[in-house]
Amino acid sequence: MVHNFNAGPSILPKDVLQQASESLLNFNNSGLSILEIGHRTALFEAVLHEAISLVKELMQLGSDHEVLFLHGGASTQFMQVPYNLLDEDQTAAYIDNGIWGSKAIKEARLFGNVEVVASSKDKNHTYLPKEFTTPAGAVYLHYTTNNTVEGTQWQSVPQTDLPLVADMSSDILSRQLDFNRHALIYAGAQKNIGMAGVNLLVINKNVLGKVKRKIPTILDYRIHIENGSMLNTPPVFAIYVSMLTLRWLKKMGGVAAIEKLNNQKADLFYSTLDSLPMFKGPVAKEDRSKMNAVFVMEDISLEKQFLDVAKQENLYGIKGHRSVGGFRASFYNALPLSSVEVLVQVMKDFANKVG
Amino acid sequence: MVHNFNAGPSILPKDVLQQASESLLNFNNSGLSILEIGHRTALFEAVLHEAISLVKELMQLGSDHEVLFLHGGASTQFMQVPYNLLDEDQTAAYIDNGIWGSKAIKEARLFGNVEVVASSKDKNHTYLPKEFTTPAGAVYLHYTTNNTVEGTQWQSVPQTDLPLVADMSSDILSRQLDFNRHALIYAGAQKNIGMAGVNLLVINKNVLGKVKRKIPTILDYRIHIENGSMLNTPPVFAIYVSMLTLRWLKKMGGVAAIEKLNNQKADLFYSTLDSLPMFKGPVAKEDRSKMNAVFVMEDISLEKQFLDVAKQENLYGIKGHRSVGGFRASFYNALPLSSVEVLVQVMKDFANKVG
Repeated sequence: MVHNFNAGPSILPKDVLQQASESLLNFNNSGLSILEIGHRTALFEAVLHEAISLVKELMQLGSDHEVLFLHGGASTQFMQVPYNLLDEDQTAAYIDNGIWGSKAIKEARLFGNVEVVASSKDKNHTYLPKEFTTPAGAVYLHYTTNNTVEGTQWQSVPQTDLPLVADMSSDILSRQLDFNRHALIYAGAQKNIGMAGVNLLVINKNVLGKVKRKIPTILDYRIHIENGSMLNTPPVFAIYVSMLTLRWLKKMGGVAAIEKLNNQKADLFYSTLDSLPMFKGPVAKEDRSKMNAVFVMEDISLEKQFLDVAKQENLYGIKGHRSVGGFRASFYNALPLSSVEVLVQVMKDFANKVG
Repeated sequence: MVHNFNAGPSILPKDVLQQASESLLNFNNSGLSILEIGHRTALFEAVLHEAISLVKELMQLGSDHEVLFLHGGASTQFMQVPYNLLDEDQTAAYIDNGIWGSKAIKEARLFGNVEVVASSKDKNHTYLPKEFTTPAGAVYLHYTTNNTVEGTQWQSVPQTDLPLVADMSSDILSRQLDFNRHALIYAGAQKNIGMAGVNLLVINKNVLGKVKRKIPTILDYRIHIENGSMLNTPPVFAIYVSMLTLRWLKKMGGVAAIEKLNNQKADLFYSTLDSLPMFKGPVAKEDRSKMNAVFVMEDISLEKQFLDVAKQENLYGIKGHRSVGGFRASFYNALPLSSVEVLVQVMKDFANKVG
């Protein structure tokens, strides 16, 4: 039994993997693999429509919000968002609270003015800068809801009158949130909603069509909306796996139910962390992520030994991001509470034995 | 037994599907699904490296040519190619010989001057315009090696002194070709080399770095080359399926062997087509595609009936593209000769019975 704490690509529900595996050989009794069917067949169109419906239902989206499944990962959106929303003579406000937000800022600067309205760079992004003012006339405010690398997470939506753009790659559909308050949400699927190779986008269509520049067809959100995510051959299998994962989430009780489970996992982990002097969390307590827990050891020379023990216990993927060091355990939707129970037991045993 | 003549996504080798299906549950005895492993693990890096090596080996690429696996489909390349290669004050030459080439032309016009040096629009792209002259100083010549929709295929590489850019989505690795003569080759994987959701690129690195514009990071070929296709989370599973398909191709004897098989399939089909007055091929004989055979019926009112018969015989995906009508049968690498034998028998029987 492996406990998969990978930061992404990461654990998926067993049922999803089982069904995806079967569909690779024979999809819906068609005699064909899901990889071998045309994307404009009724077989695949049903998959895409169900995936879109499930997103709308689970997020409780209003009628202004369109759902797209597009090729690429969130890094594509770092430039596609300003390409569609930010004119050369306009300003966009960005919150710089982690490595991914910084990358988004860098790309946006190619398209217009960018004002960084808040930054946590001074403390290596170990907290969230929640006080900020935005420049008059800014066209949107961009933030990252959860920071996979640094282990911080916005506990509520930032207060602003601006259209909100959020990179939700690493905590989408992990908790209740007012998704309708966002003008644009994007998320690479490979954490909570599927496999690597597809982006989920939720767009309030009223924010589109306002920039003067000509947008290449494949980057234009409006054209993707008109074509119902079928402008070109979509990433068929990645969308299928998202559909299965969303179906699983609905069956689990939806976002409210998964939030409860995610809270249990995070509470168990962080209360253990705080009870063991040997370990410490570098992140401000109020900003701790329920998806990615970053932790280090008081005595850094013990880290290698702890990693070895974790490996023996089949705790997979707890090594920290190469830019931060230490450890990181990711508690995405599909991770069972029992895996966190094993992790905290291993930490306690290690503290008792070595401490 | 289904005979899969889909134009793409399309048939894949049974061995590939079997192994992919198993790896969805337990990849290389890791106890994890291929969808659940980090892309920066040794497990996945081995997959990516093998895929790249196999492309280099099967295409016999020289050391100037780099191989990338990127998110998206060929439609992404329609804009990414000129983004990287065509400055605003420069000219690129394009051959307009099909629906995909026309789309590529449309996108390139957003970035610089485009001169259409040859077009087959006058006859609905049912032939290839092989005579052309290119403007002095043009930075590249773009063409589509095989036209999936119209059923034409360049039998040899166009004669030119310009750096050649080719969309090879629908015939890549189906036949021997001087791949090194190309400055840039791109191909969506979902026909001959895998599943939808990944692009293969082969780039002579000497053509890069010459445009003045700033290129968004995710669109910059140089940065992808520096990062070995791992700039961001790659489409892990799509690359894995490509690796399996390339492995299968090598095992089959490589490009020379598959070309022989593809010739057999095309010869059998087209000789049958030409022997049956009831059917006709709208494409100029010398330009016929060995990948996608387009055909119609002399008496158009019989087409529905033939399609019904084909369905009964489990011939899947032979309806023509919505923009062309009639029929289309695709003979990609993974399609066995026996499927073409069934198809021609059904055609003969239909001609005997109804004709």
